[in-house]
Amino acid sequence: MQIQTTPFLDLARLRADTPGCLDNLFMNSAGASLMPQPVVTAMMEYLQQETQLGGYEVERLRTGQIARFYDETAQLLNTQPGNIAYAYSATDACIQVLSAIPFRAGDTILTTTNDYVSNQLAFLSMQQRLGIRLLRINDLPNGDLDLTHLEELIRIHRPVLVAVTHIPTNSGLVLPAEEVGKLCRQYNVWYLLDAAQSAGQLPLDVARIQPDFLIATGRKFLRGPRNTGFLYVSDKVLEAGLSPLFIDRRAATWTGPDAYALQTSARRFEPQEISLLSVGLTEAIRYANQVSLEAIIQQNQHLMNRLRTGLEQIDGLVLLDRGSRQSNLLTFHTTRQSLPTLEATLRHERVIFTTQYPPSALIDFQRKGIDWLIRLSPHYFNTLDEMDSVVDLITRSLN
Amino acid sequence: MQIQTTPFLDLARLRADTPGCLDNLFMNSAGASLMPQPVVTAMMEYLQQETQLGGYEVERLRTGQIARFYDETAQLLNTQPGNIAYAYSATDACIQVLSAIPFRAGDTILTTTNDYVSNQLAFLSMQQRLGIRLLRINDLPNGDLDLTHLEELIRIHRPVLVAVTHIPTNSGLVLPAEEVGKLCRQYNVWYLLDAAQSAGQLPLDVARIQPDFLIATGRKFLRGPRNTGFLYVSDKVLEAGLSPLFIDRRAATWTGPDAYALQTSARRFEPQEISLLSVGLTEAIRYANQVSLEAIIQQNQHLMNRLRTGLEQIDGLVLLDRGSRQSNLLTFHTTRQSLPTLEATLRHERVIFTTQYPPSALIDFQRKGIDWLIRLSPHYFNTLDEMDSVVDLITRSLN
Repeated sequence: MQIQTTPFLDLARLRADTPGCLDNLFMNSAGASLMPQPVVTAMMEYLQQETQLGGYEVERLRTGQIARFYDETAQLLNTQPGNIAYAYSATDACIQVLSAIPFRAGDTILTTTNDYVSNQLAFLSMQQRLGIRLLRINDLPNGDLDLTHLEELIRIHRPVLVAVTHIPTNSGLVLPAEEVGKLCRQYNVWYLLDAAQSAGQLPLDVARIQPDFLIATGRKFLRGPRNTGFLYVSDKVLEAGLSPLFIDRRAATWTGPDAYALQTSARRFEPQEISLLSVGLTEAIRYANQVSLEAIIQQNQHLMNRLRTGLEQIDGLVLLDRGSRQSNLLTFHTTRQSLPTLEATLRHERVIFTTQYPPSALIDFQRKGIDWLIRLSPHYFNTLDEMDSVVDLITRSLN
Repeated sequence: MQIQTTPFLDLARLRADTPGCLDNLFMNSAGASLMPQPVVTAMMEYLQQETQLGGYEVERLRTGQIARFYDETAQLLNTQPGNIAYAYSATDACIQVLSAIPFRAGDTILTTTNDYVSNQLAFLSMQQRLGIRLLRINDLPNGDLDLTHLEELIRIHRPVLVAVTHIPTNSGLVLPAEEVGKLCRQYNVWYLLDAAQSAGQLPLDVARIQPDFLIATGRKFLRGPRNTGFLYVSDKVLEAGLSPLFIDRRAATWTGPDAYALQTSARRFEPQEISLLSVGLTEAIRYANQVSLEAIIQQNQHLMNRLRTGLEQIDGLVLLDRGSRQSNLLTFHTTRQSLPTLEATLRHERVIFTTQYPPSALIDFQRKGIDWLIRLSPHYFNTLDEMDSVVDLITRSLN
């Protein structure tokens, strides 16, 4: 396969860093992407040293390297290291946030029809257990979020929290994070942005978006290891003294039999235990910063234009993504072929992808009236040739 | 160094599996132990495959291997796989438990003066935020738990939860887990046993101990990777329908816009995200099961007798461990030498150990009237010669 030159990226080098992209048509960066070699090497070296010295001695010797996580993540989000907390996943970070806000029975959470399944389940559990009211903002006919309805709901219900998923797991939609932030500031409502699918894919500037909480995962477009994530909290959150309900020795210092002192920075939102995964995540964020999100988004737009245009031509293939702004998640359905046949064809040609079912995005599946979809999510290390190959493959499969 | 033959274990083979024990006097299994080679190899192979295929494809291909975690852990605890949940750490498991019990203001938690710092901090946060009452069971003059006082507290205060740390982080004490279990059953109180320091060191039989919740970490005496742990929940807990407050797509299935169905097994207590660490933990538990806890405890008793007897002879060295039953954690203090000098000597001779300070066990430090201690925690892969070496080294250092 010939590598296209691109004005944005040194694609040959980036692909050489990504051994997994040579043997496969890798299209699952929205699930768990391919880690670049520096991420893998950093984890291997850390693990080897732990094998020799044990985990605590390695942590003691590598304090500096471990602390680089805060600098790299702050750079990624255009904020300060003191506003960043490590997390085991975006969902883990979300739970820290939900437990920090002192909800009372009758309080309202506003979310969208597209918020991530695990967030929805946490809200529903709070509805059942704590008597929280969960309301969902309408979508416009084209799939975009209805910002007028959001403002109306805020004015009528005075919610405690507005929770929005930046890019839903089940469609290419990009939600208007900045506009939501503006309304939340205006009405002084806590704003949680789930950037699990956008971190590493879109530039994220918290000074512009103005979330109070931003959560993300390492394994998707940031190309880090699984079971990693992070949380950004605003100065307003820190000044309000919010902290997770269940703190540990990382978040606080035990100062008297019945007394403790919380960390002053966002580290009060962190769990205590780290591992080689933390080092892998740091390396992945460093790598993304180095490649630069501006270059990544440019290259990704080229790839997605080519892929969408190609797939749109295929008779009987229904592209499902809606909204005025779309991302690197492309979803489709067809009645022309059974799912097992289509999956087998794709796997046979070494395409790596995800099939989604209703429980992963219930409301979205119900309104689309389907019970499965295939999601393709290329990333900047993919090539235009690969887009063409997938289009050809699906064309041949359906004919 | 000559390897002693032992009737219990094939020590030569076990040490060959543990490259880290050849270059160092490794005495920190209570912090984070040395992983045996099969654990490291399993993680390396998993990581290599993720580098090629991405994390989701590897999970799909390795479903069977990943599921072995439940069987191995159930075997370790003498229970069924359906009572086991994966966790990111013992503390993470503890939080799942605390959020599952529907505490109301005024409810009482009974704990000990020796309960793990992170558990104490979580209880104190609940005291401050939820109005929970936290009471501590007295110790007897010899350091043992006062079971009569426990029963008295249960009768007077009717606590919702009794939380006990099996082996405290700050001393060699073993708490009477089974006797506490008996009282909790008798008075129908939820019983949480923190087995972070005992898992992999002592046989743990939940049919005898009868905890409702047992939490443990992978990185200590089980010799697994950091950032891993597990939770056992009793059938009584499952039948009562308890589930964590913040559930995710692993714990429950989204079945309607405002409805979900919880997993029927202990998996409803699990977080959704796994990684190579899960595979490492499974391999570590398999390894412990294979070596057998009966053989491990026999060998450990020999090691600890030799070490304690040796250190007791040293003039000016104060051994701090109390109670009628002691474990593989040995703690000491001295006024004969400054801490930095002693630490430097130990490090120079490649002893790997932990120094503890008051915030890690505040009440215990206060009653002992010291502000640091050194903790040595050998494990079955250590040798009697190594115990002698450490005794010699400290003897020479203090003279």
